[in-house]
Amino acid sequence: MKITLVKERKQKPDFTKLGFGKYFTDHMLVWEYDESKGGWQEMEIIPYDDFKIDPACCSLHYGQGIFEGLKAYKDEKGNITMFRPQANFKRMNKSAERLCMVNFDEEEALKGLTELVKLEAEWIPTEPGTALYIRPFMFGSEAFLGVHPSKKYIFTIILSPVGSYYAHGLEPTKLIVEDYFTRASQGGTGEAKCMGNYACSLLAGEEAKKKGFDQVLWLDGEEKKYVTEVGSMNMAFVIDGKVVTPELDGSILRGITRDSALTVLRDAGYPVEERKISIAEVVEAYKAGKLDEAFGTGTAAVISPVGTINFKGEDMVINNGKMGKITEWLYDRITGIQKCRYEDKFGWVYPVK
Amino acid sequence: MKITLVKERKQKPDFTKLGFGKYFTDHMLVWEYDESKGGWQEMEIIPYDDFKIDPACCSLHYGQGIFEGLKAYKDEKGNITMFRPQANFKRMNKSAERLCMVNFDEEEALKGLTELVKLEAEWIPTEPGTALYIRPFMFGSEAFLGVHPSKKYIFTIILSPVGSYYAHGLEPTKLIVEDYFTRASQGGTGEAKCMGNYACSLLAGEEAKKKGFDQVLWLDGEEKKYVTEVGSMNMAFVIDGKVVTPELDGSILRGITRDSALTVLRDAGYPVEERKISIAEVVEAYKAGKLDEAFGTGTAAVISPVGTINFKGEDMVINNGKMGKITEWLYDRITGIQKCRYEDKFGWVYPVK
Repeated sequence: MKITLVKERKQKPDFTKLGFGKYFTDHMLVWEYDESKGGWQEMEIIPYDDFKIDPACCSLHYGQGIFEGLKAYKDEKGNITMFRPQANFKRMNKSAERLCMVNFDEEEALKGLTELVKLEAEWIPTEPGTALYIRPFMFGSEAFLGVHPSKKYIFTIILSPVGSYYAHGLEPTKLIVEDYFTRASQGGTGEAKCMGNYACSLLAGEEAKKKGFDQVLWLDGEEKKYVTEVGSMNMAFVIDGKVVTPELDGSILRGITRDSALTVLRDAGYPVEERKISIAEVVEAYKAGKLDEAFGTGTAAVISPVGTINFKGEDMVINNGKMGKITEWLYDRITGIQKCRYEDKFGWVYPVK
Repeated sequence: MKITLVKERKQKPDFTKLGFGKYFTDHMLVWEYDESKGGWQEMEIIPYDDFKIDPACCSLHYGQGIFEGLKAYKDEKGNITMFRPQANFKRMNKSAERLCMVNFDEEEALKGLTELVKLEAEWIPTEPGTALYIRPFMFGSEAFLGVHPSKKYIFTIILSPVGSYYAHGLEPTKLIVEDYFTRASQGGTGEAKCMGNYACSLLAGEEAKKKGFDQVLWLDGEEKKYVTEVGSMNMAFVIDGKVVTPELDGSILRGITRDSALTVLRDAGYPVEERKISIAEVVEAYKAGKLDEAFGTGTAAVISPVGTINFKGEDMVINNGKMGKITEWLYDRITGIQKCRYEDKFGWVYPVK
């Protein structure tokens, strides 16, 4: 791996007012694939700078691009950890296959990421609720017009010190059930973390914001009957004491935080069900006083309590709009493992050394 | 509009061996939108060159990008025409709305395009089956991570002298009906000409190629029952003497060539039906000897005869795998209007002056 350092580091932003995804560190990792040059080239860490991209770069036209998101943390002693980075690179390679992109060596990627995070250690914020957000992404970089897979790719990792994903922090979010627009359907790209899924979700998201909601709760694309996910989070409900979450059916992102949450809950003896959940069941549970809690899971917001779900104009206010007990326990547990306050019994914490 | 010319023009490729989307002209049009600077900036024509793009450019992560495709032609006297450019810019603005992107002034865009095409007149090939392919596209260019619409956009037009879209030219194409993967469903982005739709289609396309087919014939996303489109073309059948094409239901691209074809066919007295067509109906017509012809319509390939459609492992060979009479008539008629061999009674031909 070739490393080129910046001459002078940037000024750091105020780590108590970071917001999300606004500031980027001094360096980035770039790893190019070129079929005509035998495939993957030497990995490089270089100063964070603009890409030079041909206007006919196929991804700018045909959207052949995928990404991941994970976080690094630093404790008071300066020890740096990442949370389940292997799982992100594994999922990224799965996304690559769905988008007809090339696969990369996951161990090499992790080595490169480790070097990059070490180099940017001073960018890892330590204030409560903050972290160094890690964004690996890969896009087709060949210059052509016409619909076919690229023969060149750029794999990149950029880093951004972040605060909470939602402006209101841990305040419960307000969701609106979307029953017109579709995020994904069977046989589509819903399970892949690819560019197109997010662009597709924007219009419903903007309409939700105009109506005073934070995010959209998506239903399945075929019948608009079953709850799927929130786009930035997987979704779970506590119904009559049981944690119920939509099963992974190919149209839902295989959330790593989702998996961590379910594992921790099961380990602690909470009843957990992964299955189809119709929105009708959620409404029924609410009316019967059995919709105890609702929460989202995702890297950006970790565990996010849901205070309100609006369906067809009616607000369901969950647990009086406050964070529920299981949600709070889970938030504490997951962030505690991430920040090494709790034992890492599942081997999720990856020390950056 | 500001125009900066190249110092030296590139060497032209062999205009008899162009392929599709491989060569680009000397100049490009760039028009930037920046909310913080009051919106649209001065349009510019500049030498064709790499964009400088921040690695956090939101489109590279969240796919907020759209495009169009149209063609310019030159006759023996050097007169240049474009085909229905207003319709492309109108559709592009519709795509922009679906993707939460900013709208642009269509007249301004057309003026800019006209200037660009005039400047690149020597790049317009005149060999049979060739044209200057025009690619307007727009993408969100703001640098941030987090799912929300961009506040900056780059609208660009690049030009590429092209031969036929399919390597086999007017030889009838072979399609395979895709009954697992989904291109688009109701409430999705199927009608928009956006990045994500194309990336989503690649895997099925590659699998089709491995099986010896040129393209995929997509079914609806909900029931996998109705024929929708081919991705690079809208689809039409001649069944028992009638031209039948899937109705525009929101999940199908509103093809401009499709519209031109239907208009010309109706004007000539052919019976035309726009309605739902199940794949079962197509198979039934085939078995009854009533599937007279099948063809695709699209800017890249104009009118493309379909010789074979494979459904669940069975080939339907249409018109003995040869171009049918109506398809041939239509190809001649549309290309004839485009190249001014026939009267332009619908006002589609836009002279570049």
